[in-house]
Amino acid sequence: MKFIIDCYGGDFSPEEIVKGVILASKKEKEISYVLVGKKEEIESLLENNKADKTRFEIIDAREVFTNNDQPTLIVHGKENTSLSKALMALRSREDVDALLTAGSTGATLAGSIFKIGRVKGVLRPCLMATLPSRTGKLVRVLDIGANMDAKPEYLYQYALMANELVKLTGVDNPRIGLLNVGKEEEKGNELTHAAFKLLKEDKELNFIGNIEGDHVLKGEADIVVCDAFAGNVLIKSLEEAAYFVSDAFQAAIKKNIFTKLGALFQLHELKKVKLLFKYANEASAPLLGIKKLVIKMHGKSKAKNVEAVILETKKLAHGKLNEKIENAVNKA
Amino acid sequence: MKFIIDCYGGDFSPEEIVKGVILASKKEKEISYVLVGKKEEIESLLENNKADKTRFEIIDAREVFTNNDQPTLIVHGKENTSLSKALMALRSREDVDALLTAGSTGATLAGSIFKIGRVKGVLRPCLMATLPSRTGKLVRVLDIGANMDAKPEYLYQYALMANELVKLTGVDNPRIGLLNVGKEEEKGNELTHAAFKLLKEDKELNFIGNIEGDHVLKGEADIVVCDAFAGNVLIKSLEEAAYFVSDAFQAAIKKNIFTKLGALFQLHELKKVKLLFKYANEASAPLLGIKKLVIKMHGKSKAKNVEAVILETKKLAHGKLNEKIENAVNKA
Repeated sequence: MKFIIDCYGGDFSPEEIVKGVILASKKEKEISYVLVGKKEEIESLLENNKADKTRFEIIDAREVFTNNDQPTLIVHGKENTSLSKALMALRSREDVDALLTAGSTGATLAGSIFKIGRVKGVLRPCLMATLPSRTGKLVRVLDIGANMDAKPEYLYQYALMANELVKLTGVDNPRIGLLNVGKEEEKGNELTHAAFKLLKEDKELNFIGNIEGDHVLKGEADIVVCDAFAGNVLIKSLEEAAYFVSDAFQAAIKKNIFTKLGALFQLHELKKVKLLFKYANEASAPLLGIKKLVIKMHGKSKAKNVEAVILETKKLAHGKLNEKIENAVNKA
Repeated sequence: MKFIIDCYGGDFSPEEIVKGVILASKKEKEISYVLVGKKEEIESLLENNKADKTRFEIIDAREVFTNNDQPTLIVHGKENTSLSKALMALRSREDVDALLTAGSTGATLAGSIFKIGRVKGVLRPCLMATLPSRTGKLVRVLDIGANMDAKPEYLYQYALMANELVKLTGVDNPRIGLLNVGKEEEKGNELTHAAFKLLKEDKELNFIGNIEGDHVLKGEADIVVCDAFAGNVLIKSLEEAAYFVSDAFQAAIKKNIFTKLGALFQLHELKKVKLLFKYANEASAPLLGIKKLVIKMHGKSKAKNVEAVILETKKLAHGKLNEKIENAVNKA
């Protein structure tokens, strides 16, 4: 198994990205890596972190695709960036199974669609987010960024694709919800009315009906489908509300010497609260429906996050996610 | 000034609603009230809470419109409910300035649109939510429930209407943002592209451009406009994320005798965190664009919340909100 890693583009690139790959390489001997970016920097990171160099190949790329660059430049105009070179290698090399990048989401999307292409039968690839929930189970939300004006058929395919992915993570018969403004079938807009019908008709899906914005984190569904506009609003507002309240508690606890003294008694339990945010920070966003696996890592990814994403991507590659998506989509 | 109060339909009706009205009546001598609901229950609440009975009129209504009733029944079929009788009184009586209810949102919307009607020139009335923010300033979000498949012109009018309301609360030149998935004008869907143009063209509005879901609680805009689907997803997901994190902190603090001991040192500061939620619980949702003021109170409203909403409604009635809306909409 071989993964291509875009070592640049993230907030802590290349150090944390390369360190994360090395961590994964020590835990998981089956995978080898193609690292893309400034050769001498990557080599010295491998050296300093005592990596087994035989498992790393380097593709030299002198430029970085930044978040300020117009995403469509990935298709034409920024060929010397690490992201562009990584995409070209993913496209041309048969020995490579997946690409991971912490770089520009828009460019990763545009580049994957135009340079790698879609799985046969997939109308529109989409971007998936992973959220924590009150039950401890993970919730997958899609689409969060690819198709703003979605059609009902897209939403139905999102469900089919995520269903295959979630099964590979060990969840039997994933519960699929349609993001909406109320429980009843007649609630919502034209898009949700039509999507509801398509989802309900497919007896092989475990469609549990509509799910409201305040039920997502309650963990009532394993998969929540929606158009990219609503999905983007959902995950961004969830994230900010969580930080807003967390910051308020942290500020209260750190206010003065007395409150800090109090916190000494709570240290162990407060650490557990931080774990709630662990997934949000580690969460990778796979592009579903692209011919080869493309995983968008969080821009703020640190070594530990990169390691976790690599290990999860291995499960998807090993489980032949794309073959399963192709089968599911073409059967439906 | 005279307000009609639907005393039933909320989770703590009629006790907390009537008590709230009495609290307001003691603070604000200018307003008198028409209370709608079971006469003998309301009378005994007035008696027990030492209200000045000369300022309260009662309309007897034996039934309650519940959240399980189909909202459209308010238009035809549930004439004996307190909400229906309150709406009829609002419509027929010239001495009444506003209606406040903690009852069914859908029925309040449907009843107001069909029984009271729109302000001249308003295409679609809408429902507005109020959120706290990191800056301490309030943020108004609309539409959160009236028009699922909105047109760009609706969003533009939401901005015009909220602009008048926010000015009446003492904010000069309110900052208006368009909810979107990115800052740049070209981001978003067909609806936001067209709405952006309309908002930008109106030089009398302080339009600050697109605002993303994670910037709403940062307080970067005083008013955030969006279609009801996105608005509903936004406010519900914000609320649940805030409770999710708050519950996690509370559980950590109350975990055992040591953590509770620690909390004794933090009591004062932790109380302040709770204030963040105060507005969310008190927040009323005015229906903008209805010919007479209709205010939807939170279903969980307690006496203190009812009092606060009445005092705020007084400002809107006093400032002749609807006249200002009519002027703004017809000028534009």
